[in-house]
Amino acid sequence: MLHKPDVTQSLAHLVATTRWDDIPQPVRHQAKRSFMNFFAVALAGCRTSPVEIALRSLQEFSGGRQATVVGRSERIDALSAAFLNAAGANVFDFCDTHVRTVIHPTAPVAPALLALAEMRQDKPVSGADLLTAFVLGQEVQARIGLAISPAHYDRGWHITSTCGVFGAVAGSGKLLALDEAQMVWALGIAATQSAGLCECLGTPAKSVSVGNAARNGLWSALLAEKGFDGPPEPLAGVQGFYNALGGPTDLARVTDGLGASWELMNTSYKPYPCGFVIHPVLDCVLDWRRDNPGAVVEKVVVRGNPLLQLRTDRPNVSTGRESQVSVQHAVAAALVTGKAGVEQFTDACVNDPAVQALRRRVAVEVDPAFSTVAVALDITADGKIHKLSQAAARGSDQNPMSDKDLEDKLRTSAAGWDPRHDIGPLIDAVWALEKSADVSKLASLAVPRG
Amino acid sequence: MLHKPDVTQSLAHLVATTRWDDIPQPVRHQAKRSFMNFFAVALAGCRTSPVEIALRSLQEFSGGRQATVVGRSERIDALSAAFLNAAGANVFDFCDTHVRTVIHPTAPVAPALLALAEMRQDKPVSGADLLTAFVLGQEVQARIGLAISPAHYDRGWHITSTCGVFGAVAGSGKLLALDEAQMVWALGIAATQSAGLCECLGTPAKSVSVGNAARNGLWSALLAEKGFDGPPEPLAGVQGFYNALGGPTDLARVTDGLGASWELMNTSYKPYPCGFVIHPVLDCVLDWRRDNPGAVVEKVVVRGNPLLQLRTDRPNVSTGRESQVSVQHAVAAALVTGKAGVEQFTDACVNDPAVQALRRRVAVEVDPAFSTVAVALDITADGKIHKLSQAAARGSDQNPMSDKDLEDKLRTSAAGWDPRHDIGPLIDAVWALEKSADVSKLASLAVPRG
Repeated sequence: MLHKPDVTQSLAHLVATTRWDDIPQPVRHQAKRSFMNFFAVALAGCRTSPVEIALRSLQEFSGGRQATVVGRSERIDALSAAFLNAAGANVFDFCDTHVRTVIHPTAPVAPALLALAEMRQDKPVSGADLLTAFVLGQEVQARIGLAISPAHYDRGWHITSTCGVFGAVAGSGKLLALDEAQMVWALGIAATQSAGLCECLGTPAKSVSVGNAARNGLWSALLAEKGFDGPPEPLAGVQGFYNALGGPTDLARVTDGLGASWELMNTSYKPYPCGFVIHPVLDCVLDWRRDNPGAVVEKVVVRGNPLLQLRTDRPNVSTGRESQVSVQHAVAAALVTGKAGVEQFTDACVNDPAVQALRRRVAVEVDPAFSTVAVALDITADGKIHKLSQAAARGSDQNPMSDKDLEDKLRTSAAGWDPRHDIGPLIDAVWALEKSADVSKLASLAVPRG
Repeated sequence: MLHKPDVTQSLAHLVATTRWDDIPQPVRHQAKRSFMNFFAVALAGCRTSPVEIALRSLQEFSGGRQATVVGRSERIDALSAAFLNAAGANVFDFCDTHVRTVIHPTAPVAPALLALAEMRQDKPVSGADLLTAFVLGQEVQARIGLAISPAHYDRGWHITSTCGVFGAVAGSGKLLALDEAQMVWALGIAATQSAGLCECLGTPAKSVSVGNAARNGLWSALLAEKGFDGPPEPLAGVQGFYNALGGPTDLARVTDGLGASWELMNTSYKPYPCGFVIHPVLDCVLDWRRDNPGAVVEKVVVRGNPLLQLRTDRPNVSTGRESQVSVQHAVAAALVTGKAGVEQFTDACVNDPAVQALRRRVAVEVDPAFSTVAVALDITADGKIHKLSQAAARGSDQNPMSDKDLEDKLRTSAAGWDPRHDIGPLIDAVWALEKSADVSKLASLAVPRG
């Protein structure tokens, strides 16, 4: 039923034959924006407990100092670095999103490519190579996921992990210049490692499948390069990926128009590390607080799409993790601190008495006329009602984060980890990527010196 | 629908609380038989291309010489050793089988435990510890698989890999003395790594998911030991293992009678590295050839269960791999060489002109009266018809391989790799396992000296 023998081959052909010159300028630029965002979220995640524990554990087995762990002085073998950087980038809900699949698309791909570039310094990877491989990885994972969205995710599959391994293998295979036959093998080796359950969301275990997507994708490409082969149709074969993990599958979404459009253009970036429906609320609250720094808030009423209430009407929260889906907490923390970064969604902020007190003064009302990216607020402060609204949240399709916003996100994240870290050289290097003859030092710019 | 919050907890409780004294003598003995068979199949697989390539690749990243690669002088870190020994043990269709699930149950579990014992020599693992952990790993993986058999495998899941990771984590967690809460985390970290597609069977890619089952199971237990946590119900949770990978699920098969019966007793061992339905045919042919060494065979007619024809009526084969499911090849090779070991299912044997000629003289007839383990043969040789039959194949439930048969399987396998390798000490050590205070040297007895 599902068998269509040219699905894997079509993707392998695209990856093997696409050149830098085939990639339109806006797609190249979007790739650089994704790297900027990646370094921001990886620097936020690099100090968290899942990364700490996994790093200590992997060091017991690792021999290499081949590759950088973003934000950290430890170096480690390339496979482990790919794991750790992917896991770290996705710890917080701060990643980029391929909206139609809800894949967080950069976390599995960029770390595999960066580790490979560091590992193979004898054969330098240029910036154009890196961006080409990245764009192709994005394309392959998004298209594989589109064919089974949304049923695949709804069944419990963590699509960032299950499809991310394909992005990592496609990009890595491109950097290794695999031919089409090897690329089919590599996709097969990746397919048989595709895994990850939504049941683990909200726990450190989530980070394992995201890390594995990058690590196993990279390793699949390296094995195929050495002649390790696999089946001819691992995706659409009768006992293949789609039959096992897929459910209803529309294979045309994998192959139609391949090479003519670029899924990377459907990526959005998040200004705040919390549920997306909370974002327009934060836009309003942060702007208002900036203009009214001393005002004493008595009450906040938020009116928005039914999803806002369904997902985030959570006045009582006890952990940083949980606070990421509480509109009451987000509003209170933003009013108290004037910010909405990683620090505002920690256990410490959740337990801040001032934030706790203010959370109780936030109410949610539903109005189906609002889209999920729009909202209206009444803030009562010093006896006056301030009427605020946002028609399209920053970071949404209608109001994407600017290049400057992404730079600022990276600056904030870097400063949050080590205020002495001069992140300017990394920002410059990302914007100039296509001019670089050798990107093997790029990731190390994300490590504070000394 | 599926949610039953105590499934994972029940398994964790079993693993955490079961002691050596709780395990009946026949189960202990069967565990030793499984280790004997494991070393036989791992010694057969250790020289194959998937193991060679994966070893060379992993050496680029590995720092340790913590653990043994069965049959080889190279030592490597414990995670990679678990991967390589599991992959190697399962390269050929020569593994043990848990019949009701078709899980090959020892390949993912034993390598994880042996690597862990070598890695943690500061805290010696006794033979009783090893066997207890092994029995529990077998129990957990079989029960998890029983709940979704046979639909899970039929959908394309390579159940040895998908459930093997649970066997490896349960056994490893037992050796690490994880408490119940840690064991639930470990099972969750394993669940989100459960993967492996039947589409890859017959290619080296199969070995990756089997190797991962051992490696990732071991790593999951090590992470949980360090406090890396996961969800409370990774198996039966609404976005958990069963909902994503399961299909129709009978959770009672996981929990009913837990600790009162032992699935390890439902393991069978294979005397020949080929499809099980061919086994009764080989019993007859090998016995006859031993008694009629010089007879010139003109024709062979095999009568058996419809499955024999459906799966193995394959007069033309071109690769060793394919020959494992060709009754014509098996008969011809056994008649020409007098054996039915790994060497008889290689490309070289497939292309032997004498074997090729004889393959064409073998016919298959169906008789539904035969069970899958029974067969009748007419061999026409030197003008005479010899009528042979086997009511229950060696290795079947009704006619299990004896301890001596398993010893011989290991001896043959060891000699096939290195005729100078004295395998006696390993055989003695396996039979005396429960008396050993420290099993960290066990795997190294499977390495030829010098």
